[in-house]
Amino acid sequence: MSIITLTTDFGLKDYFVGALKGSLLSQHPEALIVDLSHEVSPFNIAEASYIVGAAYTRFPKGSVHLIGVDASRTPKINHIAVLWNGHYFIAANNGILSMLMRKIVPEKMVEITIHDRLQPDATDMDVFATVAVHLVKGGNLNVIGKTITQLHEVTELQPVLSPENQSIKGYVMYIDHFGNAVTNIHQQLFLDMAKGRPYELTIKRDKLKTIYAKYADIELVDSKSDHTGKTIAIFNEAGFLEIGIYKSSPHTGTASTLLGLRYRDFILIEFKS
Amino acid sequence: MSIITLTTDFGLKDYFVGALKGSLLSQHPEALIVDLSHEVSPFNIAEASYIVGAAYTRFPKGSVHLIGVDASRTPKINHIAVLWNGHYFIAANNGILSMLMRKIVPEKMVEITIHDRLQPDATDMDVFATVAVHLVKGGNLNVIGKTITQLHEVTELQPVLSPENQSIKGYVMYIDHFGNAVTNIHQQLFLDMAKGRPYELTIKRDKLKTIYAKYADIELVDSKSDHTGKTIAIFNEAGFLEIGIYKSSPHTGTASTLLGLRYRDFILIEFKS
Amino acid sequence: MSIITLTTDFGLKDYFVGALKGSLLSQHPEALIVDLSHEVSPFNIAEASYIVGAAYTRFPKGSVHLIGVDASRTPKINHIAVLWNGHYFIAANNGILSMLMRKIVPEKMVEITIHDRLQPDATDMDVFATVAVHLVKGGNLNVIGKTITQLHEVTELQPVLSPENQSIKGYVMYIDHFGNAVTNIHQQLFLDMAKGRPYELTIKRDKLKTIYAKYADIELVDSKSDHTGKTIAIFNEAGFLEIGIYKSSPHTGTASTLLGLRYRDFILIEFKS
Repeated sequence: MSIITLTTDFGLKDYFVGALKGSLLSQHPEALIVDLSHEVSPFNIAEASYIVGAAYTRFPKGSVHLIGVDASRTPKINHIAVLWNGHYFIAANNGILSMLMRKIVPEKMVEITIHDRLQPDATDMDVFATVAVHLVKGGNLNVIGKTITQLHEVTELQPVLSPENQSIKGYVMYIDHFGNAVTNIHQQLFLDMAKGRPYELTIKRDKLKTIYAKYADIELVDSKSDHTGKTIAIFNEAGFLEIGIYKSSPHTGTASTLLGLRYRDFILIEFKS
Repeated sequence: MSIITLTTDFGLKDYFVGALKGSLLSQHPEALIVDLSHEVSPFNIAEASYIVGAAYTRFPKGSVHLIGVDASRTPKINHIAVLWNGHYFIAANNGILSMLMRKIVPEKMVEITIHDRLQPDATDMDVFATVAVHLVKGGNLNVIGKTITQLHEVTELQPVLSPENQSIKGYVMYIDHFGNAVTNIHQQLFLDMAKGRPYELTIKRDKLKTIYAKYADIELVDSKSDHTGKTIAIFNEAGFLEIGIYKSSPHTGTASTLLGLRYRDFILIEFKS
Repeated sequence: MSIITLTTDFGLKDYFVGALKGSLLSQHPEALIVDLSHEVSPFNIAEASYIVGAAYTRFPKGSVHLIGVDASRTPKINHIAVLWNGHYFIAANNGILSMLMRKIVPEKMVEITIHDRLQPDATDMDVFATVAVHLVKGGNLNVIGKTITQLHEVTELQPVLSPENQSIKGYVMYIDHFGNAVTNIHQQLFLDMAKGRPYELTIKRDKLKTIYAKYADIELVDSKSDHTGKTIAIFNEAGFLEIGIYKSSPHTGTASTLLGLRYRDFILIEFKS
């Protein structure tokens, strides 16, 4: 199997995504191309990182994940290809991959160096497509780049732990299609901090004492009430704390519209003794 | 051939659709996955039913249609898989499939019972993906569920027939991309009622005496006039009465904007003598 | 390889695209279907022509490009299939293909004549799908149509050259996902006119003296400044003059919103001496 996934901020109206697929298929007709998202907000590397990070594990090892977000190669930012957890990632070294890997060192990282071998008018996506086809055919990273040992780090909003581990302050990093607010508090960090202690979440004016495993679990706890419209916290499938309104929709109001949660707003988790 | 179609309200920005495709391809690399729509309005089972019902017949028999709309499994609503007209449908038993089949009894229906065999953190889509792969590979419904004899019925707005068959009152069930208003009056119902009689449609303040087979037919009747902007009624490809503005667009005004037709508005057909 | 690309104004919510893919796959399970765009503005043949023209060259020769925009067959407008540069195009003879080919005579053009051979209720897309499958399987144009020698010409806004070749006046033909304004001034026309002379662009109130090869080139010229927000002119990958704001986004303002550039606005290039 030779899967190449695409994540871009190109949108779906323009010819860009189609042209990219044409390039890939012209070079490798057997490529199985899967769209992750082309609706990443323009140049938003946090969104790109979240989307790729949440989806890539569902694909077979050996898949190649091409990320066309803020992908221009400039004197400050080069193109990189990374092998991590058995998957390949191609992106500009703009912080997307360092956010994705959260301080875990990947198996192998290279700066892409094939630019001189392509046509002079080759675009960034021509470069990425050439690398993607090389990798999905089983090619080696060393053939298309030189090893690097560090990724460009982004010192974006990180969760803040209180001095005596009494609280975690995290931030909204993504508003999803249903208006749910996804924070940057990972379940693993929560478990490491909580150590079984009870806790209370503060979300704007709301207080919650339970984080569910999934939305429908509120029905298991109490199947007789209508929970539509209630504020709920869950650890979502990607492992991050997410605040939602049960059965919300943009028509009826969402966590984003009803609670006023926006990108970069904070959420507080306090642990009880 | 092994086609799995997807219809969801997940939208195209988030990672959900990509993750679902990754799950399907990881289990069955030969699966041919086709998107029907991911832009169903959140939790709108009428839209989901209309879209799947209008598209599925175009696919080869044996295709599997996975419907991820309002798909949470709760104590009240289970997951089902149905064989109908040679196609498989996987959905929550929330009314989508009973609306789709309009009282026709399918070949076979099962309540899905594989949940205990999956990982404890398996999502609803993990369940649907596992069932879809099983079925598209030729697996039997009995292996993944137990037979049921009835679907959850939705007592949504149904077309109303006058006592002496002098009229049909139907409702707008869907506003399409061109702003056309699709009603729940099926051509078969109309033909059964009309029995060749002349008729008049009342659509808000408009009166029409003709239902065309397709929009361009108005040009056949009179190819010299410019019909742009006229109100037209047709039976659309899905078989339902649809009200449109000829060559309308969201920029110039549509049936939805110009006539003020909205979801659940009524349309009246009166038969003469 | 047997690629069929799709370009339509159907949008992604309705069942239309799914139904079209089902028809194609039912007739030819091996077809590799690639979406170029389904978000063409309703009935906008200029957009359709631009998108297909910019993307098709990336696909292998022999690919079939199906264009479902303003595709109704009427007494005035028939259906055509064209072989051009080794690619097949299927569309209504409504100007899309004459705009795309810009006065270059294609290898072969036919008016499609298979309508009588299909079911009486066959839709325009049924016709296009049947032709697409025929062609992608290696079938001949003569089997599905009769040769024509001329396309329907559109006398849309064309670039205007001043009498003594001192200037080119072009028009905005497309606003892309990033809010960049694409004009109808092709690089080849510019080079033929410029003959190495210096030039000045007038874009509303802005004056520019450089057209870059790509956006990131502004960083090469001066990598120390932050160019975010500057007005830039480039010849885009499709060969057309494009006006953009460096690293623009709909949130921060784009060429379309900041400069007020809209569809059909003009751009002037004046040559010196």
